[in-house]
Amino acid sequence: MAHNQMFQYSLALSLMDGVADKGLPISEFLMHGDHGLGTFRYMNGEMIVVDGEAYQMLSDGSIVDLDPNGDAIHPFAQITRFKPEITAKAAVPNGVFKSVTVRTAAGQEEPHQGLLQIGKNQVSFTFENVRGTLIGFRQPHYLQGIGVHGDHLHFITDDRKRGGHVLALQSDGEVEVRAAQMYTMTLELPKGDEDFDKADLLGAHEDLKSVEG
Amino acid sequence: MAHNQMFQYSLALSLMDGVADKGLPISEFLMHGDHGLGTFRYMNGEMIVVDGEAYQMLSDGSIVDLDPNGDAIHPFAQITRFKPEITAKAAVPNGVFKSVTVRTAAGQEEPHQGLLQIGKNQVSFTFENVRGTLIGFRQPHYLQGIGVHGDHLHFITDDRKRGGHVLALQSDGEVEVRAAQMYTMTLELPKGDEDFDKADLLGAHEDLKSVEG
Repeated sequence: MAHNQMFQYSLALSLMDGVADKGLPISEFLMHGDHGLGTFRYMNGEMIVVDGEAYQMLSDGSIVDLDPNGDAIHPFAQITRFKPEITAKAAVPNGVFKSVTVRTAAGQEEPHQGLLQIGKNQVSFTFENVRGTLIGFRQPHYLQGIGVHGDHLHFITDDRKRGGHVLALQSDGEVEVRAAQMYTMTLELPKGDEDFDKADLLGAHEDLKSVEG
Repeated sequence: MAHNQMFQYSLALSLMDGVADKGLPISEFLMHGDHGLGTFRYMNGEMIVVDGEAYQMLSDGSIVDLDPNGDAIHPFAQITRFKPEITAKAAVPNGVFKSVTVRTAAGQEEPHQGLLQIGKNQVSFTFENVRGTLIGFRQPHYLQGIGVHGDHLHFITDDRKRGGHVLALQSDGEVEVRAAQMYTMTLELPKGDEDFDKADLLGAHEDLKSVEG
Protein backbone atom coordinates (compact mmCIF):
# COMPACT_ATOMS: atom_id res chain seq x y z
CA MET A 1 0.00 0.00 0.00
CA ALA A 2 1.23 3.49 -0.82
CA HIS A 3 2.01 5.94 1.98
CA ASN A 4 -0.70 7.81 3.86
CA GLN A 5 -3.64 5.79 2.61
CA MET A 6 -5.96 4.49 5.24
CA PHE A 7 -6.87 0.85 5.44
CA GLN A 8 -9.80 0.06 7.69
CA TYR A 9 -11.30 -3.26 8.66
CA SER A 10 -15.01 -3.30 9.57
CA LEU A 11 -16.97 -0.45 11.13
CA ALA A 12 -17.18 1.45 14.40
CA LEU A 13 -20.93 0.78 14.07
CA SER A 14 -20.39 -2.95 14.28
CA LEU A 15 -18.62 -2.50 17.63
CA MET A 16 -21.62 -0.48 18.80
CA ASP A 17 -23.70 -3.52 17.86
CA GLY A 18 -21.35 -5.82 19.78
CA VAL A 19 -19.85 -7.58 16.73
CA ALA A 20 -16.48 -8.63 18.16
CA ASP A 21 -16.24 -12.40 17.93
CA LYS A 22 -14.33 -12.52 14.63
CA GLY A 23 -11.83 -10.20 13.02
CA LEU A 24 -8.89 -9.67 10.73
CA PRO A 25 -5.76 -11.64 11.75
CA ILE A 26 -2.90 -9.39 12.84
CA SER A 27 -0.60 -10.66 10.08
CA GLU A 28 -3.07 -9.50 7.40
CA PHE A 29 -3.69 -6.23 9.17
CA LEU A 30 -0.01 -5.30 9.43
CA MET A 31 0.43 -5.78 5.68
CA HIS A 32 -1.45 -2.49 5.25
CA GLY A 33 0.76 -0.18 7.28
CA ASP A 34 2.95 0.62 10.24
CA HIS A 35 0.93 3.08 12.35
CA GLY A 36 -2.56 2.38 13.52
CA LEU A 37 -5.06 1.48 16.18
CA GLY A 38 -7.93 -0.87 16.83
CA THR A 39 -9.42 -3.41 19.14
CA PHE A 40 -9.31 -7.14 19.86
CA ARG A 41 -11.59 -10.14 20.04
CA TYR A 42 -14.39 -9.40 22.52
CA MET A 43 -13.05 -5.80 22.64
CA ASN A 44 -10.50 -6.92 25.17
CA GLY A 45 -8.10 -3.99 25.42
CA GLU A 46 -6.85 -1.30 23.06
CA MET A 47 -4.50 -1.86 20.15
CA ILE A 48 -1.81 0.55 18.97
CA VAL A 49 0.75 0.16 16.18
CA VAL A 50 3.83 2.40 16.36
CA ASP A 51 6.66 2.08 13.85
CA GLY A 52 5.38 -1.32 12.78
CA GLU A 53 5.22 -2.72 16.34
CA ALA A 54 1.77 -3.71 17.60
CA TYR A 55 0.76 -3.70 21.28
CA GLN A 56 -2.27 -4.80 23.25
CA MET A 57 -3.04 -2.50 26.18
CA LEU A 58 -5.16 -4.34 28.73
CA SER A 59 -7.50 -3.02 31.40
CA ASP A 60 -5.34 -4.39 34.22
CA GLY A 61 -2.69 -1.92 33.09
CA SER A 62 -0.42 -4.51 31.45
CA ILE A 63 0.81 -4.26 27.88
CA VAL A 64 1.50 -7.18 25.55
CA ASP A 65 4.03 -6.80 22.73
CA LEU A 66 2.19 -8.64 19.98
CA ASP A 67 3.62 -11.31 17.74
CA PRO A 68 3.00 -10.04 14.17
CA ASN A 69 2.29 -13.62 13.15
CA GLY A 70 0.41 -14.50 16.31
CA ASP A 71 -3.22 -15.31 16.83
CA ALA A 72 -4.53 -11.84 17.66
CA ILE A 73 -7.55 -10.79 15.60
CA HIS A 74 -9.07 -7.35 15.16
CA PRO A 75 -12.85 -6.86 14.87
CA PHE A 76 -12.11 -3.20 14.09
CA ALA A 77 -8.82 -1.59 13.10
CA GLN A 78 -7.34 1.30 11.12
CA ILE A 79 -3.81 1.55 9.81
CA THR A 80 -1.63 3.51 7.42
CA ARG A 81 1.88 3.38 6.04
CA PHE A 82 2.75 6.69 7.59
CA LYS A 83 5.04 9.24 6.02
CA PRO A 84 4.89 12.55 7.87
CA GLU A 85 4.16 15.51 5.61
CA ILE A 86 3.67 18.12 8.27
CA THR A 87 6.17 18.25 11.14
CA ALA A 88 5.98 20.87 13.84
CA LYS A 89 9.47 21.03 15.33
CA ALA A 90 9.74 21.44 19.06
CA ALA A 91 12.49 21.88 21.68
CA VAL A 92 11.58 18.53 23.18
CA PRO A 93 12.25 15.85 20.57
CA ASN A 94 9.52 13.52 21.67
CA GLY A 95 6.25 13.92 23.46
CA VAL A 96 6.34 14.77 27.14
CA PHE A 97 2.81 15.14 28.43
CA LYS A 98 1.79 16.87 31.63
CA SER A 99 -1.05 14.40 31.86
CA VAL A 100 -2.77 11.81 29.73
CA THR A 101 -6.04 10.19 30.75
CA VAL A 102 -6.86 6.96 28.98
CA ARG A 103 -9.47 4.29 29.19
CA THR A 104 -8.89 0.67 28.39
CA ALA A 105 -11.84 -1.48 27.45
CA ALA A 106 -12.14 -4.51 29.70
CA GLY A 107 -13.95 -6.47 27.02
CA GLN A 108 -17.37 -7.99 26.61
CA GLU A 109 -18.82 -9.63 29.72
CA GLU A 110 -21.28 -11.51 27.52
CA PRO A 111 -21.55 -12.13 23.77
CA HIS A 112 -22.81 -9.23 21.63
CA GLN A 113 -22.44 -6.65 24.36
CA GLY A 114 -22.14 -3.31 22.56
CA LEU A 115 -19.40 -0.72 22.80
CA LEU A 116 -21.64 1.69 24.68
CA GLN A 117 -22.14 -0.79 27.54
CA ILE A 118 -18.46 -1.68 27.55
CA GLY A 119 -17.62 2.02 27.67
CA LYS A 120 -19.67 2.38 30.83
CA ASN A 121 -17.59 -0.31 32.51
CA GLN A 122 -14.27 0.98 31.25
CA VAL A 123 -11.22 1.39 33.44
CA SER A 124 -9.50 4.76 33.24
CA PHE A 125 -6.04 5.87 34.25
CA THR A 126 -4.32 9.24 34.39
CA PHE A 127 -0.57 9.32 33.78
CA GLU A 128 1.38 12.43 34.76
CA ASN A 129 4.59 13.77 33.24
CA VAL A 130 4.93 10.87 30.86
CA ARG A 131 6.90 10.57 27.65
CA GLY A 132 5.09 8.74 24.95
CA THR A 133 3.46 8.63 21.54
CA LEU A 134 -0.06 9.27 20.35
CA ILE A 135 -1.33 7.50 17.25
CA GLY A 136 -4.59 8.61 15.79
CA PHE A 137 -6.84 9.59 12.95
CA ARG A 138 -8.87 12.77 12.51
CA GLN A 139 -11.95 11.86 10.52
CA PRO A 140 -14.59 14.03 8.88
CA HIS A 141 -18.24 14.10 9.87
CA TYR A 142 -19.30 11.88 6.96
CA LEU A 143 -17.13 9.02 8.28
CA GLN A 144 -18.92 8.92 11.64
CA GLY A 145 -20.23 5.38 12.04
CA ILE A 146 -17.72 3.94 9.61
CA GLY A 147 -15.00 5.30 11.85
CA VAL A 148 -15.15 7.98 14.50
CA HIS A 149 -15.75 11.64 13.69
CA GLY A 150 -13.05 13.92 15.05
CA ASP A 151 -9.82 12.86 16.74
CA HIS A 152 -9.52 9.22 17.75
CA LEU A 153 -6.23 8.72 19.61
CA HIS A 154 -4.47 5.87 21.33
CA PHE A 155 -1.44 6.50 23.56
CA ILE A 156 1.56 4.45 24.64
CA THR A 157 4.48 5.49 26.82
CA ASP A 158 8.05 5.37 25.55
CA ASP A 159 8.83 2.49 27.90
CA ARG A 160 5.81 0.61 26.46
CA LYS A 161 4.44 0.01 29.93
CA ARG A 162 1.31 2.14 29.98
CA GLY A 163 -1.28 3.36 27.54
CA GLY A 164 -4.82 3.22 26.25
CA HIS A 165 -7.57 5.05 24.38
CA VAL A 166 -7.14 8.78 25.05
CA LEU A 167 -9.93 10.59 26.89
CA ALA A 168 -8.02 13.79 27.71
CA LEU A 169 -4.50 15.12 27.57
CA GLN A 170 -2.40 18.12 28.47
CA SER A 171 1.06 18.85 27.17
CA ASP A 172 3.65 20.98 28.91
CA GLY A 173 3.86 23.01 25.76
CA GLU A 174 6.32 21.19 23.60
CA VAL A 175 5.57 18.02 21.71
CA GLU A 176 6.44 17.00 18.20
CA VAL A 177 3.47 16.68 15.90
CA ARG A 178 3.80 14.67 12.72
CA ALA A 179 0.84 14.45 10.40
CA ALA A 180 -0.25 13.73 6.87
CA GLN A 181 -3.44 14.33 4.96
CA MET A 182 -5.04 11.16 3.60
CA TYR A 183 -6.93 11.08 0.32
CA THR A 184 -7.54 7.38 -0.15
CA MET A 185 -9.30 4.98 2.15
CA THR A 186 -9.88 1.29 1.68
CA LEU A 187 -12.67 -0.19 3.72
CA GLU A 188 -12.82 -3.97 4.06
CA LEU A 189 -15.95 -5.53 5.53
CA PRO A 190 -16.19 -8.86 7.36
CA LYS A 191 -17.06 -11.80 5.13
CA GLY A 192 -18.85 -14.83 6.52
CA ASP A 193 -19.37 -13.23 9.93
CA GLU A 194 -22.92 -14.04 10.98
CA ASP A 195 -22.92 -11.45 13.75
CA PHE A 196 -21.92 -8.73 11.30
CA ASP A 197 -24.49 -9.88 8.75
CA LYS A 198 -27.24 -9.72 11.38
CA ALA A 199 -26.23 -6.37 12.92
CA ASP A 200 -28.44 -3.42 12.02
CA LEU A 201 -25.46 -1.04 11.82
CA LEU A 202 -27.69 1.97 12.25
CA GLY A 203 -26.08 3.23 15.47
CA ALA A 204 -26.88 6.53 17.01
CA HIS A 205 -24.26 9.12 16.24
CA GLU A 206 -24.65 10.45 19.76
CA ASP A 207 -23.93 7.04 21.28
CA LEU A 208 -20.77 6.58 19.25
CA LYS A 209 -19.67 10.11 20.06
CA SER A 210 -20.18 9.53 23.76
CA VAL A 211 -18.02 6.44 23.87
CA GLU A 212 -15.29 7.12 21.30
CA GLY A 213 -15.38 10.86 20.77
CA MET B 1 -8.43 -4.29 -9.06
CA ALA B 2 -9.95 -7.59 -8.03
CA HIS B 3 -13.54 -8.39 -8.99
CA ASN B 4 -16.51 -6.95 -7.12
CA GLN B 5 -14.63 -4.32 -5.18
CA MET B 6 -16.04 -0.84 -5.35
CA PHE B 7 -13.92 2.10 -6.36
CA GLN B 8 -15.44 5.49 -5.67
CA TYR B 9 -14.19 8.95 -6.48
CA SER B 10 -15.32 11.79 -4.21
CA LEU B 11 -18.61 11.98 -2.32
CA ALA B 12 -22.30 12.34 -3.02
CA LEU B 13 -22.11 15.09 -0.36
CA SER B 14 -19.74 17.11 -2.48
CA LEU B 15 -22.30 17.14 -5.32
CA MET B 16 -24.88 18.37 -2.80
CA ASP B 17 -22.47 21.22 -2.09
CA GLY B 18 -22.06 21.91 -5.81
CA VAL B 19 -18.47 20.71 -6.13
CA ALA B 20 -18.39 19.76 -9.81
CA ASP B 21 -15.71 21.82 -11.50
CA LYS B 22 -12.93 19.23 -11.28
CA GLY B 23 -12.92 15.46 -11.32
CA LEU B 24 -11.20 12.22 -12.11
CA PRO B 25 -10.25 11.81 -15.80
CA ILE B 26 -12.17 9.02 -17.52
CA SER B 27 -8.98 7.11 -18.36
CA GLU B 28 -8.08 6.85 -14.66
CA PHE B 29 -11.63 6.01 -13.69
CA LEU B 30 -11.94 3.12 -16.16
CA MET B 31 -8.79 1.50 -14.78
CA HIS B 32 -10.88 0.53 -11.74
CA GLY B 33 -13.61 -1.47 -13.41
CA ASP B 34 -16.06 -2.14 -16.22
CA HIS B 35 -19.50 -1.43 -14.72
CA GLY B 36 -20.36 1.81 -13.02
CA LEU B 37 -22.07 5.15 -12.91
CA GLY B 38 -21.37 8.77 -12.15
CA THR B 39 -21.64 12.32 -13.31
CA PHE B 40 -19.72 14.87 -15.37
CA ARG B 41 -18.17 18.30 -15.04
CA TYR B 42 -20.86 20.75 -13.93
CA MET B 43 -23.13 17.69 -13.41
CA ASN B 44 -23.96 17.80 -17.09
CA GLY B 45 -25.75 14.51 -17.73
CA GLU B 46 -25.59 11.02 -16.30
CA MET B 47 -22.76 8.57 -16.80
CA ILE B 48 -23.11 4.80 -17.17
CA VAL B 49 -20.46 2.18 -17.81
CA VAL B 50 -21.66 -1.15 -19.24
CA ASP B 51 -19.22 -3.92 -20.19
CA GLY B 52 -16.37 -1.43 -20.15
CA GLU B 53 -18.11 1.08 -22.46
CA ALA B 54 -18.85 4.49 -20.97
CA TYR B 55 -21.71 6.74 -22.08
CA GLN B 56 -22.84 10.27 -21.32
CA MET B 57 -26.62 10.60 -21.25
CA LEU B 58 -27.61 14.22 -21.76
CA SER B 59 -30.75 16.11 -20.83
CA ASP B 60 -31.68 16.76 -24.47
CA GLY B 61 -32.10 13.00 -24.80
CA SER B 62 -28.89 12.42 -26.75
CA ILE B 63 -26.24 9.91 -25.74
CA VAL B 64 -22.50 10.26 -26.32
CA ASP B 65 -20.33 7.13 -26.61
CA LEU B 66 -17.31 8.30 -24.62
CA ASP B 67 -13.70 8.04 -25.69
CA PRO B 68 -11.97 6.12 -22.86
CA ASN B 69 -8.95 8.36 -23.36
CA GLY B 70 -10.96 11.50 -23.97
CA ASP B 71 -11.29 14.62 -21.87
CA ALA B 72 -14.36 13.69 -19.82
CA ILE B 73 -13.91 14.13 -16.08
CA HIS B 74 -16.04 12.80 -13.23
CA PRO B 75 -16.64 14.85 -10.07
CA PHE B 76 -18.36 11.77 -8.64
CA ALA B 77 -18.26 8.19 -9.87
CA GLN B 78 -18.48 4.57 -8.72
CA ILE B 79 -17.23 1.54 -10.57
CA THR B 80 -16.45 -2.14 -10.12
CA ARG B 81 -14.88 -4.97 -12.07
CA PHE B 82 -18.10 -6.91 -12.09
CA LYS B 83 -18.31 -10.66 -11.89
CA PRO B 84 -21.89 -11.82 -11.29
CA GLU B 85 -22.24 -14.16 -8.32
CA ILE B 86 -26.00 -14.30 -8.18
CA THR B 87 -27.90 -14.77 -11.43
CA ALA B 88 -31.65 -15.07 -11.52
CA LYS B 89 -32.42 -16.83 -14.79
CA ALA B 90 -35.45 -15.66 -16.71
CA ALA B 91 -37.35 -16.61 -19.86
CA VAL B 92 -36.40 -13.31 -21.43
CA PRO B 93 -32.59 -13.22 -21.75
CA ASN B 94 -32.22 -9.51 -21.36
CA GLY B 95 -34.20 -6.81 -19.70
CA VAL B 96 -37.49 -5.81 -21.28
CA PHE B 97 -39.13 -3.17 -19.16
CA LYS B 98 -42.78 -2.18 -19.28
CA SER B 99 -41.70 1.31 -18.35
CA VAL B 100 -38.63 3.11 -17.10
CA THR B 101 -38.75 6.69 -15.87
CA VAL B 102 -35.43 8.47 -15.76
CA ARG B 103 -34.14 11.93 -15.05
CA THR B 104 -31.12 13.44 -16.66
CA ALA B 105 -29.38 16.29 -14.92
CA ALA B 106 -29.10 19.34 -17.15
CA GLY B 107 -26.06 20.57 -15.27
CA GLN B 108 -25.21 23.59 -13.19
CA GLU B 109 -26.61 26.91 -14.40
CA GLU B 110 -24.07 28.73 -12.27
CA PRO B 111 -20.91 27.68 -10.40
CA HIS B 112 -21.37 25.76 -7.15
CA GLN B 113 -25.07 25.12 -7.69
CA GLY B 114 -25.88 22.09 -5.55
CA LEU B 115 -27.42 18.80 -6.60
CA LEU B 116 -30.68 19.59 -4.85
CA GLN B 117 -31.26 22.68 -7.01
CA ILE B 118 -30.19 20.82 -10.14
CA GLY B 119 -32.57 18.02 -9.23
CA LYS B 120 -35.44 20.49 -9.16
CA ASN B 121 -34.66 21.53 -12.73
CA GLN B 122 -34.13 18.02 -14.00
CA VAL B 123 -35.63 16.69 -17.21
CA SER B 124 -37.47 13.40 -16.91
CA PHE B 125 -38.51 10.89 -19.54
CA THR B 126 -40.61 7.74 -19.43
CA PHE B 127 -39.73 4.97 -21.87
CA GLU B 128 -42.25 2.18 -22.49
CA ASN B 129 -41.58 -1.40 -23.52
CA VAL B 130 -37.85 -0.86 -23.81
CA ARG B 131 -35.04 -3.36 -23.77
CA GLY B 132 -32.06 -2.21 -21.80
CA THR B 133 -29.66 -2.54 -18.91
CA LEU B 134 -29.64 -1.15 -15.42
CA ILE B 135 -26.34 -0.56 -13.64
CA GLY B 136 -26.42 0.26 -9.99
CA PHE B 137 -25.24 -0.09 -6.45
CA ARG B 138 -27.27 -0.92 -3.35
CA GLN B 139 -25.58 0.81 -0.44
CA PRO B 140 -26.12 0.47 3.29
CA HIS B 141 -27.38 3.25 5.54
CA TYR B 142 -23.91 4.08 6.84
CA LEU B 143 -22.73 4.99 3.34
CA GLN B 144 -25.38 7.69 2.90
CA GLY B 145 -23.52 10.89 2.14
CA ILE B 146 -20.44 9.09 0.90
CA GLY B 147 -22.66 7.43 -1.68
CA VAL B 148 -26.40 7.03 -1.77
CA HIS B 149 -28.27 4.80 0.66
CA GLY B 150 -30.45 2.21 -1.06
CA ASP B 151 -30.59 1.49 -4.76
CA HIS B 152 -28.91 3.97 -7.07
CA LEU B 153 -29.54 2.93 -10.67
CA HIS B 154 -28.72 4.27 -14.09
CA PHE B 155 -30.38 2.87 -17.22
CA ILE B 156 -29.45 2.64 -20.89
CA THR B 157 -31.38 1.02 -23.73
CA ASP B 158 -29.91 -1.81 -25.79
CA ASP B 159 -29.66 0.48 -28.80
CA ARG B 160 -27.74 3.01 -26.65
CA LYS B 161 -30.11 5.78 -27.67
CA ARG B 162 -31.95 6.54 -24.43
CA GLY B 163 -31.27 6.43 -20.72
CA GLY B 164 -30.68 8.29 -17.48
CA HIS B 165 -30.85 8.12 -13.70
CA VAL B 166 -33.74 5.83 -12.76
CA LEU B 167 -36.65 7.33 -10.83
CA ALA B 168 -39.11 4.47 -11.31
CA LEU B 169 -39.44 1.26 -13.29
CA GLN B 170 -41.80 -1.58 -14.01
CA SER B 171 -40.87 -4.86 -15.60
CA ASP B 172 -43.25 -7.13 -17.46
CA GLY B 173 -42.22 -9.86 -15.12
CA GLU B 174 -39.08 -11.30 -16.64
CA VAL B 175 -35.71 -9.67 -16.51
CA GLU B 176 -32.31 -11.11 -15.81
CA VAL B 177 -30.76 -9.95 -12.56
CA ARG B 178 -27.03 -10.30 -12.05
CA ALA B 179 -25.55 -9.24 -8.77
CA ALA B 180 -22.58 -9.62 -6.45
CA GLN B 181 -21.96 -8.70 -2.85
CA MET B 182 -19.08 -6.29 -2.34
CA TYR B 183 -16.84 -6.42 0.72
CA THR B 184 -14.14 -3.92 -0.19
CA MET B 185 -14.49 -0.28 -1.09
CA THR B 186 -11.78 2.18 -2.01
CA LEU B 187 -12.69 5.81 -1.62
CA GLU B 188 -10.50 8.39 -3.32
CA LEU B 189 -10.98 12.05 -2.41
CA PRO B 190 -10.18 15.06 -4.61
CA LYS B 191 -6.71 16.48 -4.09
CA GLY B 192 -5.98 20.12 -4.79
CA ASP B 193 -9.63 20.95 -5.45
CA GLU B 194 -10.35 24.24 -3.69
CA ASP B 195 -14.11 23.82 -3.99
CA PHE B 196 -13.94 20.43 -2.32
CA ASP B 197 -11.63 21.73 0.41
CA LYS B 198 -14.06 24.57 1.18
CA ALA B 199 -17.25 22.50 1.08
CA ASP B 200 -18.80 21.73 4.47
CA LEU B 201 -19.84 18.23 3.37
CA LEU B 202 -22.42 17.99 6.12
CA GLY B 203 -25.44 17.54 3.82
CA ALA B 204 -28.86 16.70 5.07
CA HIS B 205 -29.64 13.04 4.61
CA GLU B 206 -33.19 14.00 3.66
CA ASP B 207 -31.97 16.29 0.90
CA LEU B 208 -29.76 13.62 -0.62
CA LYS B 209 -32.54 11.07 -0.33
CA SER B 210 -34.98 13.37 -2.11
CA VAL B 211 -32.75 13.90 -5.10
CA GLU B 212 -30.92 10.58 -5.51
CA GLY B 213 -33.01 8.10 -3.56
